[in-house]
Amino acid sequence: MAKVALIGTCDTKLQELLFLRDRIQDTTGVRTILVDVGRNETKHDAISISQSELLAKYGGGKNISELSRGEFIKFIAHVASEAVKELYQSGTIDGVVSVGGSGGTSLASAIMRGVLPIGFPKLIVSTIASGDTSRIVGETDMMLMYSVVDVAGLNQVPRDVLGNAGAAIAAAALSYAGRKANKATRPSSKKRVGITMFGVTTPGADAIRSHLESNYPIETYVFHATGNGGRSMERLVRDGELDAVIDLTTTEICDLVMGGVMSAGDGRLDAAAEVGVPTIISLGATDMANFGAKDTVPARFRDRTIIEHNPITTLVRSSADDCRQVGEFIC
Amino acid sequence: MAKVALIGTCDTKLQELLFLRDRIQDTTGVRTILVDVGRNETKHDAISISQSELLAKYGGGKNISELSRGEFIKFIAHVASEAVKELYQSGTIDGVVSVGGSGGTSLASAIMRGVLPIGFPKLIVSTIASGDTSRIVGETDMMLMYSVVDVAGLNQVPRDVLGNAGAAIAAAALSYAGRKANKATRPSSKKRVGITMFGVTTPGADAIRSHLESNYPIETYVFHATGNGGRSMERLVRDGELDAVIDLTTTEICDLVMGGVMSAGDGRLDAAAEVGVPTIISLGATDMANFGAKDTVPARFRDRTIIEHNPITTLVRSSADDCRQVGEFIC
Repeated sequence: MAKVALIGTCDTKLQELLFLRDRIQDTTGVRTILVDVGRNETKHDAISISQSELLAKYGGGKNISELSRGEFIKFIAHVASEAVKELYQSGTIDGVVSVGGSGGTSLASAIMRGVLPIGFPKLIVSTIASGDTSRIVGETDMMLMYSVVDVAGLNQVPRDVLGNAGAAIAAAALSYAGRKANKATRPSSKKRVGITMFGVTTPGADAIRSHLESNYPIETYVFHATGNGGRSMERLVRDGELDAVIDLTTTEICDLVMGGVMSAGDGRLDAAAEVGVPTIISLGATDMANFGAKDTVPARFRDRTIIEHNPITTLVRSSADDCRQVGEFIC
Repeated sequence: MAKVALIGTCDTKLQELLFLRDRIQDTTGVRTILVDVGRNETKHDAISISQSELLAKYGGGKNISELSRGEFIKFIAHVASEAVKELYQSGTIDGVVSVGGSGGTSLASAIMRGVLPIGFPKLIVSTIASGDTSRIVGETDMMLMYSVVDVAGLNQVPRDVLGNAGAAIAAAALSYAGRKANKATRPSSKKRVGITMFGVTTPGADAIRSHLESNYPIETYVFHATGNGGRSMERLVRDGELDAVIDLTTTEICDLVMGGVMSAGDGRLDAAAEVGVPTIISLGATDMANFGAKDTVPARFRDRTIIEHNPITTLVRSSADDCRQVGEFIC
């Protein structure tokens, strides 16, 4: 029996959540755990973990009536994350799904990004899935599906969309449950090495991959240094999915220093050091930072060497001082 | 038996496509049709529609060797769209899936957006699914899943990700096939009315919904006028999924005129007129255009009334001349 956690605000979206729950449970061998993250307590037989139970068990009995909407979302996301983490760690759930607007998507995605590893099935049906999703998906394998119409009532479009979504997450959960059972009995014999790559470092990365995979029992994982790529690699390091890292392409640090669009934040390089995974760090592509269309390059770089890579990507040469800062960041 | 069209560049991603194909076919009652959209012809027993067959049957035997990469992608997307449209219209397929990098995602999403209706299962596993997806997803219910690592080789991460994706699209296709069989025998008795809404027009839209649904055999569909919302509504009009439109909120035209971020393009209002669906057009929220964070508002609007709605949304009052242009666009 596979189980899917269904996260939603029952005070505003109960009808849609129940419809989605039924579509999930249409799949033989799949059941749901409905977690209510609504602002106002809802009572319904279908709710497995009620809002008051969440608050009592994981929220220290805090009085939420005084919280603003923003404070409440942050608090309930934290509290529900604790509950979902417990469900995951005890092996109770094999997938997680949500349906909501911008608030619900922000809440559910924070839980999914925060406590569930890559490879664990995650899906959000959302009114904001067609647009900039980097703050929703982040460095994870979350599936996003645009709801097309507002999530308010069950006409034919939401019935079709939620029908597809329910079937999809149920089947992904069954697949995950099957793999989990197999992995427990068959540990991989190969070591896993992450490599960071960019256009200009591809020949180097390819040579490393070929050398490692031809000569050792090693699998390599390539991450494009686009901001999300570096974060994804560090995520997998923290999830225990990589045994070593060849951080060939640290251009994201150059973007951090110069204000480019492919920064991976100021925590880049932290994961391997924290977890204690062997790492080689190099300086691939730190001779440039990435910007969008040419007219978006900040005026302060007007005198630099600028390369228009394509209509939406412009490269700016790093200065001696930028490179010094990259070096200091690494050290 | 449900069938899933699997679209991919077999010259560069055959291993991943075959792995995904096997995961789809793990689901009882689901088979695949592998369509090769690669630049170079690939021969493999698993390929159902080969690149040369695509070109011969739908491409007028054009010589592709002279085409640049960009020209080829455009051409093969057009040719493969014809093939997929034929598979859809003949009722042969119940879902479509792809796995690829930026080129493959652009190609496969163009096919899915172009020839498949909302409600038909669509999924892309992509290296560019965490970021701005509006040009990929557009106004459709396409599911996107970030591949996390580069799509190049089958380590544990892509095996997990593609395992989830294969199970998900197979099950969604089964669900769609089931709904298709039911719909053929049970036509809906209710008429379907689309309504465009925005924060400031919500009370009006709610009153309309309540009046229509209480007094007539009508279902209403609400679309947020965010650019994607207006486009989604027009898409459903073209798909024959709406019987009438109350276009209460035409603020997207104001964004088009003023250069705001929520324009739905200059084809807005065309669909209902083209298809001949009864429509009432009003002027909801055309008193403002939408921009991002306050510092992104163009300098030419410095003297207007500006409202900082939240840290990422700023509203600018339309001028008499802007409003005249909105009126001319509508007429």
